[in-house]
Amino acid sequence: MFQIDLNCDLGESFGAYKIGLDQDILEYVTSANIACGFHAGDPSVMRKTVALAAERGVKMGAHPGLPDLLGFGRRNMAISPEEAYDLVVYQIGALSGFLKAEGLHMQHVKPHGALYNMAAVDQKLSDAIAKAVYKVDPGLILFGLAESELVKAGERIGLQTANEVFADRTYQSDGTLTPRSQPDALIESDDAAVTQVIKMVKEGAVKSQQGHDVSLKADTVCIHGDGAHALTFAQKIRKQLKAAGIEVTAISEQRST
Amino acid sequence: MFQIDLNCDLGESFGAYKIGLDQDILEYVTSANIACGFHAGDPSVMRKTVALAAERGVKMGAHPGLPDLLGFGRRNMAISPEEAYDLVVYQIGALSGFLKAEGLHMQHVKPHGALYNMAAVDQKLSDAIAKAVYKVDPGLILFGLAESELVKAGERIGLQTANEVFADRTYQSDGTLTPRSQPDALIESDDAAVTQVIKMVKEGAVKSQQGHDVSLKADTVCIHGDGAHALTFAQKIRKQLKAAGIEVTAISEQRST
Amino acid sequence: MFQIDLNCDLGESFGAYKIGLDQDILEYVTSANIACGFHAGDPSVMRKTVALAAERGVKMGAHPGLPDLLGFGRRNMAISPEEAYDLVVYQIGALSGFLKAEGLHMQHVKPHGALYNMAAVDQKLSDAIAKAVYKVDPGLILFGLAESELVKAGERIGLQTANEVFADRTYQSDGTLTPRSQPDALIESDDAAVTQVIKMVKEGAVKSQQGHDVSLKADTVCIHGDGAHALTFAQKIRKQLKAAGIEVTAISEQRST
Amino acid sequence: MFQIDLNCDLGESFGAYKIGLDQDILEYVTSANIACGFHAGDPSVMRKTVALAAERGVKMGAHPGLPDLLGFGRRNMAISPEEAYDLVVYQIGALSGFLKAEGLHMQHVKPHGALYNMAAVDQKLSDAIAKAVYKVDPGLILFGLAESELVKAGERIGLQTANEVFADRTYQSDGTLTPRSQPDALIESDDAAVTQVIKMVKEGAVKSQQGHDVSLKADTVCIHGDGAHALTFAQKIRKQLKAAGIEVTAISEQRST
Repeated sequence: MFQIDLNCDLGESFGAYKIGLDQDILEYVTSANIACGFHAGDPSVMRKTVALAAERGVKMGAHPGLPDLLGFGRRNMAISPEEAYDLVVYQIGALSGFLKAEGLHMQHVKPHGALYNMAAVDQKLSDAIAKAVYKVDPGLILFGLAESELVKAGERIGLQTANEVFADRTYQSDGTLTPRSQPDALIESDDAAVTQVIKMVKEGAVKSQQGHDVSLKADTVCIHGDGAHALTFAQKIRKQLKAAGIEVTAISEQRST
Repeated sequence: MFQIDLNCDLGESFGAYKIGLDQDILEYVTSANIACGFHAGDPSVMRKTVALAAERGVKMGAHPGLPDLLGFGRRNMAISPEEAYDLVVYQIGALSGFLKAEGLHMQHVKPHGALYNMAAVDQKLSDAIAKAVYKVDPGLILFGLAESELVKAGERIGLQTANEVFADRTYQSDGTLTPRSQPDALIESDDAAVTQVIKMVKEGAVKSQQGHDVSLKADTVCIHGDGAHALTFAQKIRKQLKAAGIEVTAISEQRST
Repeated sequence: MFQIDLNCDLGESFGAYKIGLDQDILEYVTSANIACGFHAGDPSVMRKTVALAAERGVKMGAHPGLPDLLGFGRRNMAISPEEAYDLVVYQIGALSGFLKAEGLHMQHVKPHGALYNMAAVDQKLSDAIAKAVYKVDPGLILFGLAESELVKAGERIGLQTANEVFADRTYQSDGTLTPRSQPDALIESDDAAVTQVIKMVKEGAVKSQQGHDVSLKADTVCIHGDGAHALTFAQKIRKQLKAAGIEVTAISEQRST
Repeated sequence: MFQIDLNCDLGESFGAYKIGLDQDILEYVTSANIACGFHAGDPSVMRKTVALAAERGVKMGAHPGLPDLLGFGRRNMAISPEEAYDLVVYQIGALSGFLKAEGLHMQHVKPHGALYNMAAVDQKLSDAIAKAVYKVDPGLILFGLAESELVKAGERIGLQTANEVFADRTYQSDGTLTPRSQPDALIESDDAAVTQVIKMVKEGAVKSQQGHDVSLKADTVCIHGDGAHALTFAQKIRKQLKAAGIEVTAISEQRST
C-alpha cells in the first residue's frame, strides 16, 4: 500500500505575535515541525504547540533555525559547520524538554528556512547537522529536501531520513526545484499540485518543466500552515490522496510497520 | 563523615565575549551550574563548557536565567509562574541536548540571579520552577537558597533539593542573608569565610550578625568563578575543608552513598 | 474652542510578524507613537511607519519600551534610572534617524507599556526619562498618564507635557485608573467612553466610579490600533467629538496657536 | 604637510561583558567608531563611550553592524540593500541621540565587520549604505576600505569619504588585501607595519606581496583596541608618524583646513 507523510511548520508565533493556523492545520498533517525559539517560537509557544499536536496525535519534530528572529530564519548566514552543530543540538534539546515534560517522544528534525536551503547544497554543513541529530538521539528521523546533501549526510551517519517534496513547486530535469526567481516556479492549480504528489508517491517520479519523467523519492510532503488557502489545500490533498489509495500517515508509523 | 558540595556558575561567556576562569575553577568545584543562553552562554559555549566539566569529572546542572542578556539575568522581571515554568523547561532541555550528545547526565538545576532571588521568596514562582524541573526529570536535584521557598517547593513536589549557602555573605538571626545594601553584608576575610562554612557543615548552624547561633542546613557552597581572588579562595577553602575533616564531593555522590 | 489630540501606538510589527491596522487607524488619529525596536518594531517597520504617518500628516513621536520583545515591553523590569535614561535616549535617537532621513521632525515621546506604568508612579525613573527627552531635544513634548509622576517630571525639567487619558478605562476618586484586576476597570459601551472623553475635555473632570466629579487634565486620548473594533471606535469618537464642538488636532498644533 | 587619521573601534562591551581597552586607546587615535547595539555595544556603553571620547577630543562616528550579537557582526548575512539602508539609518540615529544629548556632533560612519566587507565588493549594498548616511546627514564622512565599492558609492551620492588602510595587513598587486586565509596576510613586525603606513601616506602607494608599487589612497588607518599589543603599537605608530613628519589628526580636521 502507498503511504505518505504530510508535514507542516508550526509554533511560529512569538510573544504577542501570532502567526499560523496551528490548531486548524493540525487536523490534516501527520508530522509537525515545531519552531525552537531561534527563527520563531518561544518557550510558551513551544509548550502550547506540543500540547496541541499531542491532542491530535500528530508526531512532532524539532524545526531548528538560524539565530535570526528578525529575518524569520530566512536569510543565509555564514555560520561554520561547528556553529550549525551547536545550534541544532541546542534547539533539539530545548524542544525535547517540553516533550519529556509530557512523556512524549520526538520523531524527527527538519532544519528551517535558510538553514535547510544552505544544508541542501553544502556537504560540510549537512554533515554537522546530521551529526548533531545523531548524537542527541540516533533514533530521530532527519527531514531534508529530497535527495539533497542533507539527506545524504543523514544516511552517511546512520540516521533514518525522509525525502521532502513540495506539492506546489515545479521541478527541473536534474531533480532540483525550479528557482523561485523563475516565472514557472510555482504550481498555481491545487489539482495539478495534488496530481504531482500522487505521481511522486506512486511512481517515485516527477514530471519536470522540461517534460521528462525524473526519478524522485517522496517520503513526506510539506504543507503550508498560514493563509486561508492553506487549510483548503490541506483538506483537498488529504481527500484526493485517500481517493488515490494513498494512506496519509506519519513517517515513523510507516517505518515501524 | 562530613561532606559538602562546592558549586560554581560556569559557561557565562557569549560569542566574542569572555567571562570567567572556567577552566581553572573547575579544578576546585564538584558541581558546575552551566548557563543556558538566556542570561548568558550560547550554544557553542555550552558545548565547550560541558566538555571541560566532563574532563574533570565535575557534575553538571542547568543554570536557567531570565531572558535578559543585557542585564545578565540580574534584573527582576515580572514574569508569571507559567512563564517561569516555560523558560526553565526550555533551558534544562537545551543543556540536556549537549549532555545527551556526549552520553552524560544532568545532576541538578540552579536558577540564576534574579530568578533565583525572586524564587527564594515567592511560593508560586518556586512551585512553577520546581514543577518544570520535576516534569522534565524527577531525578534532578533542585538547588536553592538554604531553607528558601524554592527549596520548600522542590520538597513539596518530590524533588531532591540542595540548600545552598554562601561563604562570603553574612546572615541575620532569621536565617536570611544580610542585604547587600548593608555595610556588613560581605565577609572580607577568607579565613572567616571558610570558618563560617566549616561551622555550617559541622554544626548545621551559622553565627548571625546579631551574635546568635542560627540553625541552617548547608548542602552546597557557592564559589565564585571570576576574578583572580576567586581561584585563591577556591584553593584555600578546599584545603581547609579537608584539614577540618570535611570531604568535598558532588551532591549526587553524597546522596548515592 | 475645545481641542484634543488622539494618539495611537503604531509600528509594532516585527520582521515577519504583523500587528495592528496601522494604515487604517492613521485616518483617525493626530499623533502616532512609533515603536523603536525594543519592545516591538524593527528598522524596516520604523521606516515604513514614518512614511505612512507622514503621508497622512500625522505627527510622530518615539514610543520607547523596555528591552523585552518577548514580553512586548509589558513586564515590569527592575531597571535603574540610569538604564532608563540610556534606553530612552537610544530609542529617540533611532527613530529620529528615520525622521531626519525624510526631513521630518519628532513631536513627542511616550514611553510604552511597563516603562510607562512604572514611570507613572516612580519619581526617579520619571526624572531619568524626562531628562533623556530634554537632553536629546528640549522641544519634544512628553506624554504621560494624566497628572502622573512622569508628567510632573517633564514639567520640572522644563519640557512641554501632554496629560494622557483613556476613553475606555474608569477612574477612581483619587484620579487614578481603576486597576484592571477590578471588574469595573473597563468601559464597555462606546458611547459611555466618548461621553467620558467629552466631559474630560470640556469640564476638565471625570466622573469616578465612586460617583464624584474628579478634576483631571486631558490633553491627548489614547486610541487602540488593533482589532476590528478599534477602527469603529476611532471613527465614532472623531465624529462625536466634532459634533460636541471639540476639534481633534495634534498636540503640537494646539500649542502653537 | 602630510596628515593621517587614526581610527579605532570602540564601545564594543555589552552589559556585563567587557571588551577593549577603550580608555587607553583613546589617547592615541583621532577618530572613534562607536558600536551601536547591533553587533556590540548597548545604550549604557554608548553613553559612556561618547563621554570618554569627548573628554579626549576624539571625533566620533557610528559603527553600524549586522544584527548578530552572537557573531559579533562578523558573519555574512544575506540582507537586502533595503535592510542595509534601514539598519544603518537606525544605528546612526541611535548614536546621534547620545551625541545630541551632550551637544556633540557626529563626524563619520564606518560599517562594521561583515557589513563592511560585504559592502566593499557589493555595489547595491554600498549604494544603500551611502544613501542611508547621506539622507540622515549629508555632512557625515563615510569610511570604507580604500578604493572599495563603499567609497565609490559614497562619492557617487555626494558624501565625503575616507579611504581606510590597514597597517598590519599585506596587499596584492590589484590593491586588495591579501586574504586572511593566506599565510602572508598579516604583517607581524610593528616596524614593517608603520613603514607601510608611512609609504601609503607620503607616496600614496603600497608595496604589494608581488613586489610592485601599487597606488593606494590612505585617509585613515585602522588601529586595534584590544590586547596589550594594541596599545604598544598605537604608541609606536604615533611616535614614528610624527618622526616622519606626518601629522595625526582627525579626518574632519584635515578637510576643514
